[in-house]
Amino acid sequence: MAKPILTSQDTDFPQWYQDVVAKAELAENGPARGTIVIRPYGYRIWELLQQILDERIKATGHENAYFPLFIPMSFLEREADHVEGFSPELAVVTHGGGKELGEPLVVRPTSETVINHTFSRWIQSHRDLPVLINQWANVVRWELRPRLFLRTTEFLWQEGHTAHATSEEAQEETLKMLGVYRDVVRESLAIAALTGEKSPAERFAGADRTFTVEGMMRDGKALQMGTSHDLGQNFAKAFDIVFAAEDGSEHHVWQTSWGVSTRLVGAVIMAHGDDFGLRLPPAIAPYQVVVMPLGGDDAQSTVEAAMQLVRDLEAAGHRVKLDDRLHVGFGRRAVDWELKGVPVRVEIGPRDLESGTAVVVRRDTREKASVELERLIQTIGERLVEIQQALLDETEAQRLTRTSLISDLDEFKSTIAAEPGLYVAGWCGSASCEEAFGDGTGASIRCIDPFEELPGSEPRCLACDNLASHQAVIAKAY
Amino acid sequence: MAKPILTSQDTDFPQWYQDVVAKAELAENGPARGTIVIRPYGYRIWELLQQILDERIKATGHENAYFPLFIPMSFLEREADHVEGFSPELAVVTHGGGKELGEPLVVRPTSETVINHTFSRWIQSHRDLPVLINQWANVVRWELRPRLFLRTTEFLWQEGHTAHATSEEAQEETLKMLGVYRDVVRESLAIAALTGEKSPAERFAGADRTFTVEGMMRDGKALQMGTSHDLGQNFAKAFDIVFAAEDGSEHHVWQTSWGVSTRLVGAVIMAHGDDFGLRLPPAIAPYQVVVMPLGGDDAQSTVEAAMQLVRDLEAAGHRVKLDDRLHVGFGRRAVDWELKGVPVRVEIGPRDLESGTAVVVRRDTREKASVELERLIQTIGERLVEIQQALLDETEAQRLTRTSLISDLDEFKSTIAAEPGLYVAGWCGSASCEEAFGDGTGASIRCIDPFEELPGSEPRCLACDNLASHQAVIAKAY
Repeated sequence: MAKPILTSQDTDFPQWYQDVVAKAELAENGPARGTIVIRPYGYRIWELLQQILDERIKATGHENAYFPLFIPMSFLEREADHVEGFSPELAVVTHGGGKELGEPLVVRPTSETVINHTFSRWIQSHRDLPVLINQWANVVRWELRPRLFLRTTEFLWQEGHTAHATSEEAQEETLKMLGVYRDVVRESLAIAALTGEKSPAERFAGADRTFTVEGMMRDGKALQMGTSHDLGQNFAKAFDIVFAAEDGSEHHVWQTSWGVSTRLVGAVIMAHGDDFGLRLPPAIAPYQVVVMPLGGDDAQSTVEAAMQLVRDLEAAGHRVKLDDRLHVGFGRRAVDWELKGVPVRVEIGPRDLESGTAVVVRRDTREKASVELERLIQTIGERLVEIQQALLDETEAQRLTRTSLISDLDEFKSTIAAEPGLYVAGWCGSASCEEAFGDGTGASIRCIDPFEELPGSEPRCLACDNLASHQAVIAKAY
Repeated sequence: MAKPILTSQDTDFPQWYQDVVAKAELAENGPARGTIVIRPYGYRIWELLQQILDERIKATGHENAYFPLFIPMSFLEREADHVEGFSPELAVVTHGGGKELGEPLVVRPTSETVINHTFSRWIQSHRDLPVLINQWANVVRWELRPRLFLRTTEFLWQEGHTAHATSEEAQEETLKMLGVYRDVVRESLAIAALTGEKSPAERFAGADRTFTVEGMMRDGKALQMGTSHDLGQNFAKAFDIVFAAEDGSEHHVWQTSWGVSTRLVGAVIMAHGDDFGLRLPPAIAPYQVVVMPLGGDDAQSTVEAAMQLVRDLEAAGHRVKLDDRLHVGFGRRAVDWELKGVPVRVEIGPRDLESGTAVVVRRDTREKASVELERLIQTIGERLVEIQQALLDETEAQRLTRTSLISDLDEFKSTIAAEPGLYVAGWCGSASCEEAFGDGTGASIRCIDPFEELPGSEPRCLACDNLASHQAVIAKAY
């Protein structure tokens, strides 16, 4: 038997992840520590996701703009929590144009400071509000334990930044964009994620409240997939963003920010992949269908039939790849496309052609079916819809199976070590009890009071047994 | 008479440019010296251009990928010309994660080094070739005399990087991408630019040959709009990119790189704008049509008619803006949209409605026409096509008018001072004569031996009177 291409998920999930990222040609390490080279196949997934997100962000009234990569160090220092949170992660430019700079420049770790500095000039009157801006950009956060897509020193993302006349509007915006993320993650990435609020310890540095989308990966660990922050008036006060209301009175604006990054590519890999490689949801698969003519004496006729099929599938609106590498063994070619997670593979051999059929293989279930040529286009279209749904259903089922209600701290600690997953418990809201959950487990509160229905938690705190003020979802996380 | 919003072009073209960039809300200075904030209206122009270019780049077989922002300083030093050319412009990160770095990191001024480092791992065999990669990214080149869009410390661009088995293929690729740029500049930006080779002094640092697209702005100065480089084997040798040919022999690859940037937005402003503001080619106009209902007693019916028209125009595939700011004076609204260069403005007043017409105003000629409502959609569609063509024709005519054949150096120097434009002359190819052209004129060779037909130059060099080896196009430039 051939040596498996990937370490199995059960043997070593992190190694499986590294293997699949490399073998499916998604990404590799850049030369400077912690940096990533996103290869064309991995970048295409990001591009497709970008298009989907960009459309939704525009449909909710936001406009794209672009703000500078370099931020004067003094800007960060204006918001105390913000600078404290980001200082350990900064990359600093001290020399430019051959000279030492008077003031060092920070390579943006996020753009609240430089954007709000700009907003203070754009906003004077209530008529200038709301300001609804999005930016697609690279950001830099120094990373000591980099992992491709999940944690890299530089990553790509979008960051939304808005300013509103009232606190209520800002709250509404924060939740609206959380909803956009949840919907895209669900509908396009086919991941049934949880959404809820972060505990104060896990809040964005400078926010009043942070909301999160938390996906569960196939090893039972959680992954933070996106966040949406209600910034209150913290940055408005730091950057003096003031508007005149209709009655002439002056007020600081209320703000939000929200972002998702190339980390979502990592989420897709870990939420759906199996021991044979990626399993990509059709919505963001670079190729939704690969067509493989078989070689042999009749190679010409199978290749011609395959090319016709590719044209027909493209005309039907699908993204299609023709694999006509007849000099490469059939098994090797099939394994390649399984590794790359193409949702549907069509195999066309001479005998299939004779009988007027082709073999259609689903990547998610690996089921093969012989399909009549005249029903092929329609069948493939149906399969793609089914696969998109089936992948979502799987993550939903897995999340439910791996969600446990827990009320005893010792039991929690022994259980989560053996069975990673989501643990739902009561929490009193104190920082010390939050620490107690993590002590010895490496777990953390992923969110509190999730919007999705979960088994009702105990009315008492898992750690101190006082009355619980929140339902906490606790898990190990990436 | 109301005070003009913009300095007139004849009075002070650079001030006109600054005015229109600010007043049309295209961009503004960022807080760190030389950086740019691209505002939504300016960014949308870039986005539309990006979409057009991205499609062409993909259609010619290239795939997008992403490489790191940070490059180890030692990488730049591997190619002697490259480091010499870029050293004065570098921004350098010396601290990361709170510590001084062992090796400083350069913020990419361009990505040949980091990409070719990666290519050396991707390329082993002739079967791996060609490698055809494009990247959309930000780059940083320290700028002492920044000018929004034209020269900024950070700018956005695409950079193509390819590797080929033969020199001929690399040459072909270099010219193919030059052609893509010329076509996009012509068809989408409506600028009849010249294309040709750069003189050795103006070559990209590390290239064997550089080709350029040179547009002429409305003040008679040239603007370099894009370049395509034949890199020969310079980087292949520096980064040891070697492939095994079919016969097993090993060879360094042959390479190209090519790029255009947000500078193209500056080109659109300066090639088409007039004293009333921008004149945007429909292909890249954020709004192709603005519909302005007039206020008054019958405001409701004009607004309703305007909204219906917007829906119909959108259904016809146009980008449309409804300006229903009835509380703002009519003249002010019209001036706003002239400033922003929207190609077609439709005014709908109560009397128009009564007579079953609307007023259609072309931005390029400022001609007004009363058009029957039933012919409105078709007429607007026709106007957009006409405007796209008319803007191109104007730049073509202007370039021809302002192109002069010259054979006397003294005459050249006095003429170009009074009448900026393109001057066509013979050139012997020596660096000293190239310097002589610029001495006291501030002009430079924009390209040699252009692909477009120009008046034939003298067979002798403008400066030294020796036999000319090239036709040189000389101009002042941004």
